[in-house]
Amino acid sequence: MTDHIRIVEVGPRDGLQNEKLQVPTDLKIRFIEALAAAGLREIEATSFVSPKRVPQLADAEALWPMLSHGPAFSALTPNLKGLERAISLDVDRIAVFTAASETFTQKNINMSIDQSIETFAEMISIFRASRPTGFVRGYVSTAFECPYEGRIDPGQTVRVIEKLLNLGVDEVSIGDTIGVAAPPEVKSLTRLVLNVMSRGKITYHFHDTNGTAIANVAEAMEMGIESFDSSAGGLGGCPFAPGAGGNLATEDLVYFLERCGIPTHVDLYRLATSSLEILKVLGRSPCAKGQLARLSLSGTSPT
Amino acid sequence: MTDHIRIVEVGPRDGLQNEKLQVPTDLKIRFIEALAAAGLREIEATSFVSPKRVPQLADAEALWPMLSHGPAFSALTPNLKGLERAISLDVDRIAVFTAASETFTQKNINMSIDQSIETFAEMISIFRASRPTGFVRGYVSTAFECPYEGRIDPGQTVRVIEKLLNLGVDEVSIGDTIGVAAPPEVKSLTRLVLNVMSRGKITYHFHDTNGTAIANVAEAMEMGIESFDSSAGGLGGCPFAPGAGGNLATEDLVYFLERCGIPTHVDLYRLATSSLEILKVLGRSPCAKGQLARLSLSGTSPT
Repeated sequence: MTDHIRIVEVGPRDGLQNEKLQVPTDLKIRFIEALAAAGLREIEATSFVSPKRVPQLADAEALWPMLSHGPAFSALTPNLKGLERAISLDVDRIAVFTAASETFTQKNINMSIDQSIETFAEMISIFRASRPTGFVRGYVSTAFECPYEGRIDPGQTVRVIEKLLNLGVDEVSIGDTIGVAAPPEVKSLTRLVLNVMSRGKITYHFHDTNGTAIANVAEAMEMGIESFDSSAGGLGGCPFAPGAGGNLATEDLVYFLERCGIPTHVDLYRLATSSLEILKVLGRSPCAKGQLARLSLSGTSPT
Repeated sequence: MTDHIRIVEVGPRDGLQNEKLQVPTDLKIRFIEALAAAGLREIEATSFVSPKRVPQLADAEALWPMLSHGPAFSALTPNLKGLERAISLDVDRIAVFTAASETFTQKNINMSIDQSIETFAEMISIFRASRPTGFVRGYVSTAFECPYEGRIDPGQTVRVIEKLLNLGVDEVSIGDTIGVAAPPEVKSLTRLVLNVMSRGKITYHFHDTNGTAIANVAEAMEMGIESFDSSAGGLGGCPFAPGAGGNLATEDLVYFLERCGIPTHVDLYRLATSSLEILKVLGRSPCAKGQLARLSLSGTSPT
């Protein structure tokens, strides 16, 4: 097993876009600063998405300049307009978002997969011209199963990944958007994906709807994958995916890695407390196991 | 991978012994019947423990005769007195309970490990004389880590397992009592355990305090283990282990196995609803991922 695993914290973006309530910008900033203080080095901070479509992230322009230095911050740019907003703020790490499922892509971003790829081609060209050393992540959601289409053929997922690679993305984040996958599927898909790309460019984005996320991480690590998305407190889900549960909790991921002897340099207690204020505003109790365990051990009441 | 995994449901015993409130006997019966109706074939129904020590299970005599036929029911018999009570009710599947940690054993059952083994020798001899075809399970708790002593040397765990095997137990349930283990530890311990016993006699009993239980099950299955304890709704913990979280939820285990293509013959929705009445009485919300997912998908409010 490896001695280094990369953690990409997606709570501030993927965690909050799904919530009914809007979180005040200053609270988001405190959340992000707490995540950084806990030791997280890569944080997807927001999305330059249409404020009408995702009002929860309508404060992207206000939030971005307030991010302190330290971690590498990135932002989702779902379309050309979002990219222009990001470029005007000197965002140098962007992410584009498509899916392995045609139906999901249509419902989620109102394009076909091929249309999304054409859009990304133009966006990435503009971004590279503006930020030659910038970093581009490509998301492929519903990589295992779609809430509308059911199981996705791994070959289809690999074809979408190849289209993103042809655009020159720096990495691909492969998402189990509704959190249904189990390790044998992770093994099969990873084997196919490794035929078309190097393992260093692969990130897995697991949701923990059914409690399989850490087992999936373990399986992916067995296959040599060294990068995982997660969300503090297990915040989030997918606003357009019925039945989607929360993201893999960063607390669970960090606990697992540390217990496996892989140093994360993340302070698990600080991490466990980082989302408490947000959860309170959202009217939710902490539910991630690794978070509850830290809060319980520390004597802090989890509710 | 195997095509059959044995599930031993421990919710009615291990799940309820830790609760502050006492659950009425008729509610326990309905819970157990719901578990059986969901398709569970082996259920640890109660413990013939001192009513003073664990008042939650003081109704063992009232409960046992009311269990319907179908599943194989078992009961914990912590000492000679408990065994006598069990024998008088024709219980033919018993379990004895010791630990890999000397301190934990002392605090949990007020004996040294060797004293517990001596007691079990006498008990098993009496039980075999009374029920020649009876089944004896031996629990070894704190197999990975003890809340008092910290990490347990795997060699120590194996030595306790060997002592139980020398008494002629039919199986050993190896417990991560405080739910801290990660897959590499499961792999190391399993490798050592397989040197002293056949895999068919090994059951793992994981707690999910830190979200690693399913990953541990997956690792154990990779090593050929085919039997796991779990508790509906993730009920339970350990009354004498500070910081102990709930058992691995049967819902999570069943979901995982089914998604791996291993038939369990358990109705996941019926299982997910089986503990709801108990949880309500205990004033707790469902928290197991696999349970929440089923309830949410069915439109039943989980809270």
